[in-house]
Formats: sequence, C-alpha cells, structure tokens
Amino acid sequence: MALDHDELRRIDAYWRAANYLSVGQIYLLDNPLLREELRPEHIKPRLLGHWGTTPGLNFCYAHLNRVIRERDLDMIYVMGPGHGGPAALANAWLEGGYSEVYRHISRDAEGMRRFFRQFSFPGGVPSHVAPETPGSIHEGGELGYSLVHAFGAAFDNPGLVVSCVVGDGEAETGPLAGSWHSNKFLDPVRDGAVLPILHLNGYKIANPTVLARVPEDELIKQFEGFGYRPLMVSGDDPVYMHRRMAEVVDEALEEIAQIQRVARTSGLERRPVWPMVILRSPKGWTGPGEVDGVAVEGTWRSHQVPLARVRTNAEHRRILEEWMRSYRPEELFEESGAPVAELRELPPEGVRRMSANPHANGGLLLRDLVVPDFREYAVRVSGHGKQSSEATRVLGHFLRDVLLRNPDSFRLMGPDETASNRLSAVLEASDKVWQAQILPVDEHLGRHGRVMEVLSEHMCQGWLEGYLLTGRHGLFNCYEAFVHIVDAMFNQHAKWLKVTRRLPWRRPIASLNYLLTSHVWRQDHNGFTHQDPGFLDVVLNKPSEVVRVYLPPDANTLLSVVDHCLRSRDYVNVVVAGKQPALDFLSMEEAVLHCTRGIGIWEWAGTDRGDGAGPDVVLACAGDVPTLETLAAADLLRQLFPELRVRVVNVVDLMRLQPASEHPHGLPDAEYEALFTPDKPVIFAFHGYPWLVHRLTYRRAGHENLHVRGYKEEGTTTTPFDMVMLNDLDRFHLVMDVIDRVPELGGRVAGIRQRMVDERLRHRAYTREFGEDPAEVRDWVWPY
Amino acid sequence: MALDHDELRRIDAYWRAANYLSVGQIYLLDNPLLREELRPEHIKPRLLGHWGTTPGLNFCYAHLNRVIRERDLDMIYVMGPGHGGPAALANAWLEGGYSEVYRHISRDAEGMRRFFRQFSFPGGVPSHVAPETPGSIHEGGELGYSLVHAFGAAFDNPGLVVSCVVGDGEAETGPLAGSWHSNKFLDPVRDGAVLPILHLNGYKIANPTVLARVPEDELIKQFEGFGYRPLMVSGDDPVYMHRRMAEVVDEALEEIAQIQRVARTSGLERRPVWPMVILRSPKGWTGPGEVDGVAVEGTWRSHQVPLARVRTNAEHRRILEEWMRSYRPEELFEESGAPVAELRELPPEGVRRMSANPHANGGLLLRDLVVPDFREYAVRVSGHGKQSSEATRVLGHFLRDVLLRNPDSFRLMGPDETASNRLSAVLEASDKVWQAQILPVDEHLGRHGRVMEVLSEHMCQGWLEGYLLTGRHGLFNCYEAFVHIVDAMFNQHAKWLKVTRRLPWRRPIASLNYLLTSHVWRQDHNGFTHQDPGFLDVVLNKPSEVVRVYLPPDANTLLSVVDHCLRSRDYVNVVVAGKQPALDFLSMEEAVLHCTRGIGIWEWAGTDRGDGAGPDVVLACAGDVPTLETLAAADLLRQLFPELRVRVVNVVDLMRLQPASEHPHGLPDAEYEALFTPDKPVIFAFHGYPWLVHRLTYRRAGHENLHVRGYKEEGTTTTPFDMVMLNDLDRFHLVMDVIDRVPELGGRVAGIRQRMVDERLRHRAYTREFGEDPAEVRDWVWPY
Repeated sequence: MALDHDELRRIDAYWRAANYLSVGQIYLLDNPLLREELRPEHIKPRLLGHWGTTPGLNFCYAHLNRVIRERDLDMIYVMGPGHGGPAALANAWLEGGYSEVYRHISRDAEGMRRFFRQFSFPGGVPSHVAPETPGSIHEGGELGYSLVHAFGAAFDNPGLVVSCVVGDGEAETGPLAGSWHSNKFLDPVRDGAVLPILHLNGYKIANPTVLARVPEDELIKQFEGFGYRPLMVSGDDPVYMHRRMAEVVDEALEEIAQIQRVARTSGLERRPVWPMVILRSPKGWTGPGEVDGVAVEGTWRSHQVPLARVRTNAEHRRILEEWMRSYRPEELFEESGAPVAELRELPPEGVRRMSANPHANGGLLLRDLVVPDFREYAVRVSGHGKQSSEATRVLGHFLRDVLLRNPDSFRLMGPDETASNRLSAVLEASDKVWQAQILPVDEHLGRHGRVMEVLSEHMCQGWLEGYLLTGRHGLFNCYEAFVHIVDAMFNQHAKWLKVTRRLPWRRPIASLNYLLTSHVWRQDHNGFTHQDPGFLDVVLNKPSEVVRVYLPPDANTLLSVVDHCLRSRDYVNVVVAGKQPALDFLSMEEAVLHCTRGIGIWEWAGTDRGDGAGPDVVLACAGDVPTLETLAAADLLRQLFPELRVRVVNVVDLMRLQPASEHPHGLPDAEYEALFTPDKPVIFAFHGYPWLVHRLTYRRAGHENLHVRGYKEEGTTTTPFDMVMLNDLDRFHLVMDVIDRVPELGGRVAGIRQRMVDERLRHRAYTREFGEDPAEVRDWVWPY
Repeated sequence: MALDHDELRRIDAYWRAANYLSVGQIYLLDNPLLREELRPEHIKPRLLGHWGTTPGLNFCYAHLNRVIRERDLDMIYVMGPGHGGPAALANAWLEGGYSEVYRHISRDAEGMRRFFRQFSFPGGVPSHVAPETPGSIHEGGELGYSLVHAFGAAFDNPGLVVSCVVGDGEAETGPLAGSWHSNKFLDPVRDGAVLPILHLNGYKIANPTVLARVPEDELIKQFEGFGYRPLMVSGDDPVYMHRRMAEVVDEALEEIAQIQRVARTSGLERRPVWPMVILRSPKGWTGPGEVDGVAVEGTWRSHQVPLARVRTNAEHRRILEEWMRSYRPEELFEESGAPVAELRELPPEGVRRMSANPHANGGLLLRDLVVPDFREYAVRVSGHGKQSSEATRVLGHFLRDVLLRNPDSFRLMGPDETASNRLSAVLEASDKVWQAQILPVDEHLGRHGRVMEVLSEHMCQGWLEGYLLTGRHGLFNCYEAFVHIVDAMFNQHAKWLKVTRRLPWRRPIASLNYLLTSHVWRQDHNGFTHQDPGFLDVVLNKPSEVVRVYLPPDANTLLSVVDHCLRSRDYVNVVVAGKQPALDFLSMEEAVLHCTRGIGIWEWAGTDRGDGAGPDVVLACAGDVPTLETLAAADLLRQLFPELRVRVVNVVDLMRLQPASEHPHGLPDAEYEALFTPDKPVIFAFHGYPWLVHRLTYRRAGHENLHVRGYKEEGTTTTPFDMVMLNDLDRFHLVMDVIDRVPELGGRVAGIRQRMVDERLRHRAYTREFGEDPAEVRDWVWPY
C-alpha cells in the first residue's frame, strides 16, 4: 500500500515531534518549547546523551505505529542500539504512555520541561533504554542481545509480533552474529513473529561498521544465507524514505501474516523464509550537517552530542536552536505543550501502544507455573548414604511433568547438553524444537518442541531472558564451567531485576533459574578446561535482594530446591548439582526440612552426642562431592578417634552463611554460632573456590578457626578421587586437617597423620596403574 | 592437480594410520599393534575420549601435509572441534614430533603402547587438544574461538598460512559466528593467510547442527555473504573424497598465493575474496556402522565412544577389533612398531611439520619488545595532587611509540573504544586496520594498520590471544564493565598459561595485558549497565603464578605499571585506570618507587608524625577515584581533628595484600603490619567490590579492624561525586567511618559527624538542582 500524501505528512510530523523531543532531552533544562530565544541557562551544564542512532529509531517507531493501527497488531519494540534512550522516551511521552506511568511527567509544557530535565540528570532517568523506560524489555547498555531477546519474547506468543532494531555496531558482536540463526528455532504455528530491522547508520562510536561497508550483494547474500528475505530501505530524503519504509513494512507484515496463515492451516512443507528490513540511513539524520567546519550528520561525529559547547559557545547554541526549530515545534505542540490533536490521534490506543504493551511488562501477564508435587518424584532411601542416584536424572522426571502441565509457558534451554546433563526424561513431554531439516535418524526433534538446544550459551540465556521478561517461566541447564560465557549477560539481567524491584509499576517476573551440572569435580573425560566453579563468585557480587545460590547434596534435596526456585519471582537462582551416580543422603521428608532451613546439622553423621558439651570439631560441607568426602572423613574419624566429638553441618543455601545484615537469607549470628560454634575448629569442604566461603563469613565469630578446602585450579583429565586429592579436598586430607587443628588429639596423632599421607599416595599410585579409583572408594557407602 | 593413484594410496594409508592411532588411544591399554587377539585386559577400564570428529580432522591433516610438502608452506593447524585430541596426538606421533618432545613416547611398539595408555588416563594427557599437545595454539575445550585464534596467528606473519578447522557445533556459538568477519581486518600484504575448513559432520553431542541442516544454497550464500569463496568437499567414499579434497586444497592454496602475489606487487583494488573449504563428511567416518542394532557412523552416537562396553561385552570387543583391523595396521607399521618407511617419508620435515612448527610454540620466536623509556612521557608535577591529567591520554603517547618501534610485533586491540578511552595518540603511529570500504570522511583507517577495532570483545581477545601465542606482543583496551564478556576466554587463557609454565618445552610468551578504563566510577552518561568492577574477582580465582592486578592512581604510576606489564612473560596483567581528568599525585621518580614497592605509605598525605608512636587510623586506598576521596578525607580530618594521627597507604599492586604464602607478590606479614598496624582501625577505599579486599586479607593480623568501602551495585546516570556518595565511598562518609571507629576521638564528635551527614545531603541537593557537582568538589586539590 502506498502512503498517500496526507498520511505521509502526518507520519513525518510524528517523526519530527519525536526527533524534537529527543534533542530536547539531550540539551534542555528549560524553555522546552523554544518559546523564548535559547539562552545558556536553558542548557544542561553536562551534555550526556546520544543523538546518532535516535532519528532512525524514531523513524522505525513511527512506521511501526502505522501498521499496528492498520492491522490491529500486538507488537513490541526491541531497540538494539545501546544509545536509543531518547527515542524510546520520546515516543512513550508522545503516546501518552509515559505520563500514565510517571504522573509528574505530564503531556504538557511543564511535563515536557521535566521530561527534558530528568534525562541523564542526577535523580532522573538513565540515558539508555532501561527498566525505567515503559515499553522496554531490553536494556541499552551492553550490546549484542536484542535479537535473542526478541525471539525469546516471540516463543509461545502466537499473536505477537516483535519488531527488533539491530544496530550495525551491535551486529559486529559475536552473540548478535550467532543469533540470526534463531529462525531455525521459531515455530510459525505456536510462536509469534520477529521482524528484524537491521539499521545501517554506518558508524559506531568512532569507526565505520563492517556491515555498512561491504558491497550490497555480499550484505544481501549474508542475510539470505541466514535464511531471511531482506527488504532494503536506503536513502536520506525523508519523503522518499517514508514512502519506501511504509511499502516495505507493509510487505513484511503481509508476508508474516501469510506465513503464519499457511503454517497454521494447511501447514508448511519447510522452514519459512521470514522477511527482514535493512534500513540504511544517515547517522544523526536531520541533525547538524556541519559543525566547526567538519561534517557531522552522516558521520561518527554525531554518535553522542553533535554540539558539545552549547552553553558557552553562541554559535553552537545558534545551530542547536536552528536544528530544533527545523522540526517546526509550533506545528507539533499545542499552546499547552501537548502534542496537537492530529499527532495524539496517530499512535495506536491503550495496550496497543508499544510503550504500554503488557508483553513489555511481563509480570502483568505472568501466570503461576503449574508445579506437580515434587515429593512424588522422590528417591526412596533405605538409610543415609546407602544407595546412589543420578540427581539430575531424577530431576528430569519432575521437569518432564512441569513441561507437560505448562504447555505454553515453560521452556528448558541447554547448549546441546540436556541429554549429557541426564535430563532426557523431559523429551517424553516435549520434542527439541527444530525448524531445519529433520532426518529419519533424528530422535525427539520436532517443529513444536519446547526443549531448546543450540550450541550457544548466549542464545540459551538470551532466549530465556526474553521469555521470562514477557511473563513466562523457564530453566537453563548448562555445564558449570561454561556458564562463564554468559557472565556479562547474567550481570545485566541481575541489574535489570534490581532496578525493577524498585519500580512499583513493573510487576514481578519469574526468576531466571540456572541448573549448573557436569560440574568441576566430575569432568572425568574433559579435564582442566571444563573445571571452573567461579560463576558463584560472579553471582555473589550482585545485590543480595536478587541472587540465590543452592548446592543440594543429593537427588531429593535437588528436587526440593528446584521446586522452590521455579515458584520464585524476580531472582536469579543458581543451583549446582551432580549428574553422576552419587549417594542419596536424605529421605524426602528430611530433604524438605533441610532445604527449608538451608543449612543444618546432620546428627546421624556426627559423633557430637547432643549432651550439651558441644563438638570438638565441625566438619562443614556444601556440594555433592564435598559432602561425600566429608562423610567419608567423618567415618574415618569415628574409627580413628572414637572419643572425638565430630559435628557434620551441611549447607544447601549458601546465602545462609552471610550475616543477616548482608542478605535476607543470612543466619543471625546466634544461630550461626549455634551451628559452627564460636571457638571450635571448622573444616569446611566446599564445592567452589575456597575463599568464597571466607568472603561470606569473615564477620562471623570464630572465623579465624574456619579452614576451607575447595577447588584451587588443580585439575586435569583423571579419576574422580584423584581430582579431590589434587585439590586437598579428599577424605584423607580432611582427616589430616582435623588432626592439625584439634589440639585435644594430643601426641597420639603423628602416626595416624602419616597413615593418611600414605593412603593418599597409595590411592594415587593405584589410579595411575589401573586407570580407575580403588573399589573401596568407588563403592564406599555410609556404614552406620 | 589431480591426485595420481600412488599418491592417493599413500595419503589414504597415512589417514588410516592416524585413524588407527586415534582409536587405539581411546580404547587400548596394551596390545597396541593387535598382534594378539584383543582381550578384556587390553582395554581401558574407563573409556574417555571422542571419536566423532577425529577421522575428519585426520583427513584434513593428511591433505594439508601434502600441500605443505609440495609448496614448502609454513603452516600451522588450528583444530576447532573440542574433542579432536586423538587426532592432534596421532599426527604428532606419526610425524615424529611427539617423540622429540616426549622422549619416553618413542615411535615404536613400546612407545605406541605408552602413547595409547597415557591418553585420557590418570597421570597422562588430556583428551582435548591442550598445551601439552605439540603443534597446538588452541585448546579444545570451550568452543568458539578457533577462527579468531587463527586470524590472530596470521597477523604480521606474511609467510604463514593458518589452516583452521571449524566444527559445525562450534560454528553455532556467537563468538565463532561473529569471527567470520575477521577477513575485513586481514591485510594480504603484511599478514599471512587463514584457510578456514568448515567441517560439517552433522552432529554435536546429541543433536544435529544448524549449518549441516540448511539447504546448500543458503549455506553457500551465507559464506559468500561473509566474503569468502566456499569450495565444497562432500561425500563419504574415501577415494572420491581424497581426490576431491586434494583438488580443493590445491585450488585454495593457489588462490591464496595469487591474492598475496597481486597484493604484494601491483596492489589490490579491493578486499580479496579468500577461499575456504566446506568439508561435509560423516561423523565417526570409518567407525562402526551399527552397534546394538542402531546406526552409529554418520550420527551423533559416534560423538564419544561408539562402543561403550568393550571390556565386558565380547560382541563390542569383536566390533572394536574388526574396526581397528579395518585400517590394516600390518601394512602401516613395521615390526618395531614404527610407521613404515613410506609413511615416515610422507609428512613434511623438521619445522615444516605442523606438530613442530615454531609458530605453535610462540615463545621460540618471541623477541623482546622495544620499549621506549616510559619516564620520558611523564607528567611534570609541581606538587602532590595540584594539577590534573587524563591518565590514559598520557599513556597513549607511550603506546604510540611502542607501536612505532615494533612495527611488526605489537598490536593494540579495542572494541571501538580506543578513542573513547583517550588513547588516540596511537593513531599517529598506526592506522586502524580496515579492509572494507574506506570513504573520504574516514580518519585513520588504513589497509596496513596495527590498531584493531571491532565492536566485539570476543574478537579483540581472541585475536590478541592468537597473536601472543605465536610469539608477539599486545594490549587490549576495554571498558571495565564489558570485559566480563570475555570472562570465559580469560579463564581458558589463564588455564593455558598455568599448564604451559609446567612444560619446559613450551617457551614463555608475552603476557596478556588488559587496560580497563571507562571504569565504574566515571560512567557519567552511561549509568548502571556500564558499572561493574567484578572482572578482578574473576581474575583472582586463577592461579597466583599467572595473574597480576594493578590499580595505578594517576598518570605517572600508570606509565610505570604498563611499562612493567609489557615487558613481562606468561602472565595475565590487569591494569585499571581512569581516562577522565584526575589529580596527579606523584612525580615520575616517586611513581617508579611506589610502583616498584606496589604499596606504600604516602607520608606527605598523612599526619602520622613518624615519631614511632604510629598512627591512630590508617586510610588505605586503591584506584584513582578512591585515592582522590581518601586524600580529600585526609584533608578534612586535618581540619577537623588536627591532633589525629592519620596514615595514608596507597595500593598499586593488589596482590601485595595477600599473604606471601598465597601469591609471589604477597607482603610478608611483618611488612603488612608495618604498613597497616596490627591493631588500629583501617578504612580502605577500594575501586571494586569491597569484599575482594577482605578475601585477600582475611588471614592478616588486625583484619577485624579493616573496614572496606567500594562499589556495592548502587549506581545510575549521575555525577561523579554522586556516584561515590551512592556507594558510601565519598570523603564525608570516610570521615564518618573514621569517627565511628576511632575511640580516641571521644565525645567531641557527634556534632562533627552530623556535619558530615549534612554535607552529603547538601551535595546531593546541589547536584540534583544543577546537574553537576559543586565547584568545591570539582576543583578540589590537595591543599598542602
């Protein structure tokens, strides 16, 4: 459909209004409607914002609004370019959505003054698209994740169209480059659509962009090669560009509708070729052409503030005023400062406005997950530590039923590791989604699956974030070492959650749940590169109101913990659990009690007689392998020192170790001391880097008696017991640590200590001779 | 050139030998030449290795060897597929390079037995390509970085061809997907060539791969769109495949030679279209076709060990024996166990062997960096803290001259941030390298530059790693918050360095140097998403023998620190420094002394009279902004409490805080106590997360008196002083901390403490009113 003259005039006016409002935010403290001549005191003393990408973002917004109205679309807008804050805010204000959320920023002259002033100003709003920005699920800051967020939002949202502007700077990042392949995972039947708009404005901060500087045939082939049909919009003349963009957006939406219609009725033979838009327009379009004798519009120099010294330089101020007046604000805003009626009527209404679409405030749409009773999946245990289970395999059955009961609101993500992580039971409930070719030999691949596997931690994380932010639930299972690949994405999501918790209008969303398995202690055939428990250290740098870390020691505790995590809101939950056969320590009743407390004494494992005298030594542990070694050490100590009072404390919820003042889960000091004693030696066998425990406990009484064993970067391809020996976490070394720290053992111990040293040597020699651990280690069970 | 019959036969024999040696490594403890019937005790008890990708890697290796000989090429081989260990090892042994490095693994029957046994065995070698593997610069473990490593190796190595097998699993990762664009940064004149071989074997661990399941026209368009000319080799019949691969490899090498010839003589008009190979062959090629009734060859089931129960299952054992005998070992190995003469003569000789090429042991080729005298770049200071410099801008001049003096062995990497990080002086020495289109408006872009800018931290890191590992030098400048994007890559590089330090035949390489700037405290226009000092926490989890962290407080100390880092070997050095105007505290003479010590008392800043009585309180600081606030607090304390003895301690080398037993830079306890006192309150203003300082010092005497202020995830777009106030790191709060912790101040302090509270409120109010910090803060200098 061609734009008629009147439509073109209106859409251009709307664009001019958004551009005006964008420039105003960057520069003005006062005189928002330029009803006086611009004076220095109207200008912000520090100019902190970005113009370059903004006019292009406003241009897309205006055109998307047109099709939303015409087609009554349910659409949200993901802005990839990091510095698009002014555009997102300008459009939200123009649509009225902004003032509904922030009543003091009214849609009038005074509101406009405040709106300009608050931008990138102390006590105001950030210069990037942020949680504070209505209509956003994607923060402008760290680059590379817009397209995965968009796809995540579209999954299981068949009525939604997610438009997504990808900046040509962002497009150079690895995560973005990989995420074009998301189209191999989008189901045209059950999912919504994503409309990527690759915005080539040609420059980053200080350099041209790769995609803007390759020949057009290469550019087009690349995106055809990714499986899209690129529609080009290229130029700088607004009239031409409006007409062309309208045509192209119509064509794209028509094609999306057609693909969905066919897929949902007669069915598609093969993966559809979705349309995308490539928009080539000048950086800083409509801004100052030249400043101080050098070109600005159309170059990297318009990335940030094209005019840097407006307060002190009259010529710069003149250019700014001319620039702002070029948008003809007098035609755009009424005397009151509100947009003129014609502009007010142009955008969609109510929840169809992209700034007010509930999908972009996912908590509004969130329904509770239907969770089966996890107790029904329990391993029946005949005693403490007598038999083995594969914890994640047990969990798989529970997750299978979560998938079954939530057929359109729960997804499981994994980087080609779901089977390796022994969660294969989930495939009884859902296929792995796959829109590329399927061959007869394939198993459990399907067009409509909700188990998602791609060899990209970035895509798993980004898809899940997009899915959660639009009001659904999920879990990401990952090898422990390689979750570091998404450290930065985790950081950004945690920051987002922290901010949203302080915004009452942002409704809580489901927590981001990590299941980290194939962990450091059991990389038998992968070795050193696969051994890294440090994600916990990254996580614990983030605000305590947002992060939770659990180390369930066995299958039943894993079930209890994951049940809790899946029901929670606005957290990042990290669960570390083993996949290898490992002892079951607790019955389900005990597991629930233990997990509810998060930390506790395992009386059955200790020789602390409960007569009030207290223990001589505390063996603490967190994690499945450290718990095993601790119990084996407790067993040795019983035999070696029958009179020694040993207490075993197991930690599931790592946050319990912190002072109550530092974390909501933190134990009060009195309770901490009741568990660990204020003055007895504590030998702590920890899953991760040992100093993490010190960091959590350094303020506790008795900290000087705490001795932590954990991973200290000693590892290679070897047997499980050799791994713990390499890091001094093994049962024999724990006994040596007790001997070294319990003076009550007196002079009788030198021989016993030497026996432990010899045991270690003997075990190592056995392993190197036979290539496996001695049977006494492999088959050890709790003997009492 | 077509392969003649005899060549074909020989190359196939070589391939069979490599395959035989690969299978042997995975399965056999003994009976390496199958001179007896295979019995259970010949089989490893735990089968830990990966077959799937191996025959394809062996196939490529054999064909590359052919062209190396024919063309006398200087070539190294980067194996992207994570699980290619058996292939790399098999070929190194076949070529004889392995036995030269590891003499006990001789090229005979006993050597072969040991060679098989050690693989993925306790006390042996890892199952992935690793530092222990001769000929490797790329560890098989975490996936996604093969191609960036390959390009990094090729830069400034005009005579080198880097062949690089990219697995189709790995190809799904973001970093790999983005790195195809490295061809926009490779100079055909000054750099070598990269020959990517995309190996489509169709499957990952448990799923098909995306690229193997898209239509061929899409596949080809995608790589043409990335700017390559793909040459297809597709099939499973060895005879056909050998002929086709030979043709294609010849064609590719001819084309590479032609491109280089033209570029280096008449010059190229535009970026060349480099050839690449797409090899489509079955996963587990030549392995068992079917096991237990299901297809194995050509499916994901051959990813790991195609036969899992060889020790206990006679049928599996029979299949294994048949499989190994299918390679006809009796034709391949002499009675002695050595490869037959024909095979021994096939590979290239000496350093032309890819397993013995010195580029893959870069320390062999490393020349010292020519470093100008950093003192000549000093800022002249007229007194302590009287004037301001932009530290990184000062450093830029030094780096410019480093670039000038090392025209083929030093590169500076940055994700489009080199100008933003104020290092622009380097552009006087070198352009930013750019092979895509250059327009008249562009500045400092050139075909032959050695400043590298691409909006991808992954590419910057990966290129630099490849460059360093092949014996050159470099520095990566990055926004502090976004270096988390490469946490995982840093982890792997640190692990690599740790292992190589224990391998005497691996020669030391230049350190990986990070300059982190645009740091947490000065994100005035970017806000919360750009505020994250947590990379230091990630770094400090790695072995102390490898990692170093420096926080120079001003320009002269930055020069001194970077000079030191650039000269060092086998470390990862992290330097955090500001780019904004900040006070110069030390003259160059003082800076050198201070940096040499790494930590020290700034007598001029304190009121500790040196009369032996010691201080009443220690103000410690690390980082430019914390140092500023600490000095301002010291100034306030002089005025408020003239009799209070205040000592100011500044920390440049963070490792000095650790006990000497934990880190080679750690201060002995006595020296630590001499600085910090064993019993006085210490208020520590720290650049990063405060608990990091606790983690480093928890074993120190007086730790209970240490109170640390740092970043605690309170941030947004605001002024510099508001940022420190948000995190309680400001001068007023530091004074409050002193008041709260120095009992000697007695009862006189309640009013003064309240004044500090009021000052904070007044400053915040001013900032929110005027949008900038009060002049008394902005213009503060050390007044004494």
